[in-house]
Amino acid sequence: MLDFKYYTPTKVVFGKGTESQVADLVKEFGGKKVLIHYGGGSVVRSGLLQRVKDTLDGAGVSYVELGGAVPNPHLGLVYEGIDLCKKEGVDFILAVGGGSAIDSAKAIGYGVANEGDVWDFYDYSRKPQACLPVGVILTIAATGSEMSDSSVITKEEGLIKRGCNSDLCRPKFAIMNPELTMTLPDYQTACGCTDIMMHTMERYFTNSGTMEITDALAEGLLRTVKKNAIILRDDPKNYDARAEVMWAGSLAHNGLTGCGSDGGDWMTHRLEHELGGLYDVAHGAGLAAIWGTWARYVYKECLPRFKKFAINVMDVEDKGTDEEIALRGIEAVEDFYRSIHMPTNLRELGVEPTEEELVTLAKKCSIAVGGAKGAAKVLHEEDMLAIYRASM
Amino acid sequence: MLDFKYYTPTKVVFGKGTESQVADLVKEFGGKKVLIHYGGGSVVRSGLLQRVKDTLDGAGVSYVELGGAVPNPHLGLVYEGIDLCKKEGVDFILAVGGGSAIDSAKAIGYGVANEGDVWDFYDYSRKPQACLPVGVILTIAATGSEMSDSSVITKEEGLIKRGCNSDLCRPKFAIMNPELTMTLPDYQTACGCTDIMMHTMERYFTNSGTMEITDALAEGLLRTVKKNAIILRDDPKNYDARAEVMWAGSLAHNGLTGCGSDGGDWMTHRLEHELGGLYDVAHGAGLAAIWGTWARYVYKECLPRFKKFAINVMDVEDKGTDEEIALRGIEAVEDFYRSIHMPTNLRELGVEPTEEELVTLAKKCSIAVGGAKGAAKVLHEEDMLAIYRASM
Repeated sequence: MLDFKYYTPTKVVFGKGTESQVADLVKEFGGKKVLIHYGGGSVVRSGLLQRVKDTLDGAGVSYVELGGAVPNPHLGLVYEGIDLCKKEGVDFILAVGGGSAIDSAKAIGYGVANEGDVWDFYDYSRKPQACLPVGVILTIAATGSEMSDSSVITKEEGLIKRGCNSDLCRPKFAIMNPELTMTLPDYQTACGCTDIMMHTMERYFTNSGTMEITDALAEGLLRTVKKNAIILRDDPKNYDARAEVMWAGSLAHNGLTGCGSDGGDWMTHRLEHELGGLYDVAHGAGLAAIWGTWARYVYKECLPRFKKFAINVMDVEDKGTDEEIALRGIEAVEDFYRSIHMPTNLRELGVEPTEEELVTLAKKCSIAVGGAKGAAKVLHEEDMLAIYRASM
Repeated sequence: MLDFKYYTPTKVVFGKGTESQVADLVKEFGGKKVLIHYGGGSVVRSGLLQRVKDTLDGAGVSYVELGGAVPNPHLGLVYEGIDLCKKEGVDFILAVGGGSAIDSAKAIGYGVANEGDVWDFYDYSRKPQACLPVGVILTIAATGSEMSDSSVITKEEGLIKRGCNSDLCRPKFAIMNPELTMTLPDYQTACGCTDIMMHTMERYFTNSGTMEITDALAEGLLRTVKKNAIILRDDPKNYDARAEVMWAGSLAHNGLTGCGSDGGDWMTHRLEHELGGLYDVAHGAGLAAIWGTWARYVYKECLPRFKKFAINVMDVEDKGTDEEIALRGIEAVEDFYRSIHMPTNLRELGVEPTEEELVTLAKKCSIAVGGAKGAAKVLHEEDMLAIYRASM
């Protein structure tokens, strides 16, 4: 067991109609001039954006708007948001949407509160010293950005996708109404469930430091999402299942399932980040497409964890050698992905990189992680290339 | 599933030697003049208090001291602390100890930050509007007060024990070094494990609103504490077991294991509070002495939960009628208590109330809960009396 810090200051307001509390929450955290930041048309079409604006109007909270956050949110829009905030004297950013709008809101928050180019914080050349307060109305259960310290942005030039982690950007509040996720396309719901599980699986597969209670919480969370992902496949309007998945999404990535460990592996995410940067695929689907190949590549060097996972999460029978049990666990995850219509390789993801592109992906991934990375098994550029190739 | 709020802003710094970070943390949260509040001699004898003072001295943070917090901490000491803080211009309270020192520190924090008598907040006649910031160096894993919104104080006049709950008093930081708990007497360690489990069991036994993920987390937490309580009985210096129990103590009472429910039952706590007020027994032991009787009195009206608990936490075989399974679960809890030398009735607790005293206990408990209370089964004064009688 390793020492750890745990810090989740986000005030969560969870349940039906909770978006009506947004003005009170903005005021509670000192917001006087708000940037409402959102993504595509669904927030507009559903009437949510208008309801939010009416609530702020009713409470005398002034605001400006910036839409257009896309999956793998772009640096260009972040710059635009920073300029808008500075010009309008914005002191609070309200993200309405999923991970894209929230990550982009956090980046804008960094950009306004620090001098210089905000991209510096994403290419690791500087660390942010402050962030404008960010609040969230969540409409997609997936990234966990509503409670996390993480923000991932893609620079259009070179399609470079990078994350910045700092407690400074953890949202002040997160309004979570599961009803707002009911109109999501099935594919996005399944991508979300995959992403949620992966945030905890990344933390789970490590050789350095584990804690029994953290494992117990992680396994319970994973079993819950697995079960409810299948319920939602068949019954997308199931409120309770939406709620289970939504709350799991926050707990999967706020740090809870990593206490006592070194932080986890995260190579599936890193391998996917390069795919997401280059091909603009859905993040959850990209993770599903890579994970099985990654797992088969590394499991022998993290065998006790793969075995425990197979038995406690994937209901694999404790029979046979450890390797057999671990492999049956990996197969069970892939079966689960297929059952919720997620890809288990790049072809199913709809991406068929040339050999040259595979080499580029591995090179970019290696640079992004500073050469080598991984807690289940340390991966170098040649390992990354091997996994990309095998995941075709 | 019910709507819920979740707010755990406490920054947790967990691991060996973490108390050396105390001055930085006090400064991070704006403390310039600190009240160091602690309990009995062990904090002094172990040298911890001196180390804390040396660290504050080295960082140029000034402080005053107030020792003497006792189990079931007294209102008199709270008043003394309030006067001291006002006289010395204290702006931050550092509790060094367990639940008594922390609860007392929170009460002092209320008293300094609000006008009027602080007891008003404990007898529910007023609600606090503010609280001085409180930080914690934890030395006993038990009450979870290091992350909770709760503070329990006993008024010497009439020996009235009451709790005040408000997010205002949630500690700013909690330093948790499991090594600091290694010298605890075995009885206190067992009392702590009992209290920790009970905080989650109180939330678990309810008929109104549950959530699968919350149940999964609660059950995982309970299994972890149960297992490690027995490890600590045989090997009190086991660092990993100390750490599992310490972290479980915080998670058991910070709200995590109650998300999606109505808050839980809490009648075991309420029945014990009256015992604690009148006889000054150890809180955890008092809970153990009451729980089995309470459980047998209410289980038929909360049968699905008692059955689930029996199977998922106490490893009872899923065989026989629901009632049989539930009863075997209750017996398994009592067996567990006995195995860690906890009492399972009042006599074993060392308390033998007269019939007149039993009537007084029930009357006081009924008044304290506003007449009737309970989420597994609503208990009125006559029910409370019946449970007290049966727990002899």
